[in-house]
Amino acid sequence: MISVQQALHIIDSTMISHHIKKVKISKSLGSILAEDISAPINMPSFRQSAMDGYAIIWSDKTDYKVTEESKAGDAKHITLPPLEAVRIFTGAKVPDDADTVIMQEHVTRQDNTITITKMPRQGANVRPIGEQVHKGDCVLKKGLVLNEAAIGFLAGLGIKKVAVYNTPKVSILVTGNELQKQGKPLKEGAIYESNSVMLHMALHRFGVQKVKTFTAKDTLKATKKAIHKALDYGDILLISGGISVGDYDFVKEALNINHVDELFYKINQKPGKPLWFGKKDQQFVFALPGNPASALTCFYVYVLPILKKYAGYNAYHLPRILAKIDSEFKNTTGKTLFLKAYYKEGNVSILPSQQSSMLNTFATSNVLVTIPEDVEYINKEDKVTCIRLDGYGN
Amino acid sequence: MISVQQALHIIDSTMISHHIKKVKISKSLGSILAEDISAPINMPSFRQSAMDGYAIIWSDKTDYKVTEESKAGDAKHITLPPLEAVRIFTGAKVPDDADTVIMQEHVTRQDNTITITKMPRQGANVRPIGEQVHKGDCVLKKGLVLNEAAIGFLAGLGIKKVAVYNTPKVSILVTGNELQKQGKPLKEGAIYESNSVMLHMALHRFGVQKVKTFTAKDTLKATKKAIHKALDYGDILLISGGISVGDYDFVKEALNINHVDELFYKINQKPGKPLWFGKKDQQFVFALPGNPASALTCFYVYVLPILKKYAGYNAYHLPRILAKIDSEFKNTTGKTLFLKAYYKEGNVSILPSQQSSMLNTFATSNVLVTIPEDVEYINKEDKVTCIRLDGYGN
Repeated sequence: MISVQQALHIIDSTMISHHIKKVKISKSLGSILAEDISAPINMPSFRQSAMDGYAIIWSDKTDYKVTEESKAGDAKHITLPPLEAVRIFTGAKVPDDADTVIMQEHVTRQDNTITITKMPRQGANVRPIGEQVHKGDCVLKKGLVLNEAAIGFLAGLGIKKVAVYNTPKVSILVTGNELQKQGKPLKEGAIYESNSVMLHMALHRFGVQKVKTFTAKDTLKATKKAIHKALDYGDILLISGGISVGDYDFVKEALNINHVDELFYKINQKPGKPLWFGKKDQQFVFALPGNPASALTCFYVYVLPILKKYAGYNAYHLPRILAKIDSEFKNTTGKTLFLKAYYKEGNVSILPSQQSSMLNTFATSNVLVTIPEDVEYINKEDKVTCIRLDGYGN
Repeated sequence: MISVQQALHIIDSTMISHHIKKVKISKSLGSILAEDISAPINMPSFRQSAMDGYAIIWSDKTDYKVTEESKAGDAKHITLPPLEAVRIFTGAKVPDDADTVIMQEHVTRQDNTITITKMPRQGANVRPIGEQVHKGDCVLKKGLVLNEAAIGFLAGLGIKKVAVYNTPKVSILVTGNELQKQGKPLKEGAIYESNSVMLHMALHRFGVQKVKTFTAKDTLKATKKAIHKALDYGDILLISGGISVGDYDFVKEALNINHVDELFYKINQKPGKPLWFGKKDQQFVFALPGNPASALTCFYVYVLPILKKYAGYNAYHLPRILAKIDSEFKNTTGKTLFLKAYYKEGNVSILPSQQSSMLNTFATSNVLVTIPEDVEYINKEDKVTCIRLDGYGN
């Protein structure tokens, strides 16, 4: 048995080799950029009007004759002699000869003649080529989380595909003779299987799209075979149940037969004590407790960081915040506790019903409060560490 | 022109009628539950062993003969006379006659006889029927955000489908003669169109799956026709560009022709001043500024709340937090400012490059700092309101 701190240290020091792929930018949301991006163009790529108004060659005269028009998207070449003006709109190309754009609010117009009522400095309201971005500049750095803004920016540079780190494929293996699918009345002694859909949803929420579920009855042969198949599919394997020490818990032995090496087994924590973590070449395996809330706690604290590391995230743990606890708390277990709780505006309340089999408390909690194993008593209004469950972890 | 406060008040007081549909629980992630859920079964639905050990009829004797075995999932009926024991495992059915389970750690076994070394209280380690959930109890409330825990819980109750509020279908209409698709070198005077992919990604991130993009050239006829088609598809329409007052900005007129009623137009804010919001029966339309960063700011502050309200969220605004600003700031504009910024552990830094056309600053920011229109000066270390961009908004 190791401490939570030791287990997290093993998670943190696990080296994962990344795989890079080129994807369409529209398929890159939430992925991590695996290359530095150099701007392939200047932005703007032509001298652009910043205003609706009139383009002129600046002078100390106030009256100009309007001869042409340039609107956004126009490509035509316009010759502009001194004392003439081109009607121009925001985003439109400024004629090569012009050096200044007069805001339409600073002009009075009579037929084709404008009189400038407020002359700006020479060069005003003209965005020079490359004002925002110079061609060749490094504009986005490797390691960035691609959100809607980053993807929009790439689109604006005319970039269609980017290199990102692969997100892992995940296998879920559910073990247990007692498990029954939804849709028929419960058989005697059976329970509805819920961990596969719960883990599937958790994986989806955190950006893993490729998930496949496998099942096995409680025999060594079936478990061994199912692990073999699940390892064929996934980069990461999550096993639910069968990792305790009962006579019918075959997962540990079956992992051993499949040459998955143990990195840790059993953590001094509640819930989720019998968590098992191991490795086979570049594949990672977690054997999670069968109790749903224990499994989900282990998912947030240990599985998610490995998934995020795999996908190239630097900030791979769920964010931690400090909050004032609204009641005293005794920890008589000598274990690190992860308590389902509700955080609001700097304060946190531990929710009732912390049993490891109850998921409905999890459904209404937005943080997990961590009470370290060596802390026996927490006063009301003490600050406690909360793991945020409602964020993206970046 | 209205204030940000007035605009948000209009957003808040906009009534939206919800549509409810039944979906498979595996398709409900991030949706809002539209019904109270009553437990269709007891949990557990049979007397369940909480431990690996031996089931007995409690007595003051210490020696019992092991005659049978009950493992998880077994349905068989076992008759258990006094002074006999059934080998039992966690989650397995406790024989009807038995009233107590002895932990295996508190037993020594010799062949088929066990000697109990530590006798627990009568009834120990037996989970009674309905201990966690009684059949008929209301276990999840209408209005809950369906996360992985809630969905797992529903699965454990044997529930396959739930009633949720419909998420909206969204049309994106992009206007502008200057816009060019990615893939070919930029034409003279053109820019790459980026707002549609940016908005598409933002919609995806916040749970809107059904999105369709329309385009229109800068003529009244084309704009009118495109709005008509876009309203045929979407519950909500986002228009990009064409809402300023240039001679070629036809969106406002085209909306009017399509009988979309204005709810507000122009907000005293930077960026995003020319935002237009309107309504046609139960459809909502936002005409967003063409500048990408302005459009995205308007999306976070005004569009997202309407999307979330439509989908049944009670907490429909992005979460606001207070943070200490790390430098002084002057607001000489008389406008409410939304500033791209980086928040870390209670502190916030305004990022350089706040221009409305630059998206790359947005790509690295995790909050928008709000400076109210009537605040001219902020001291270093003052607390400012930050809109969190990295959360789910619940």
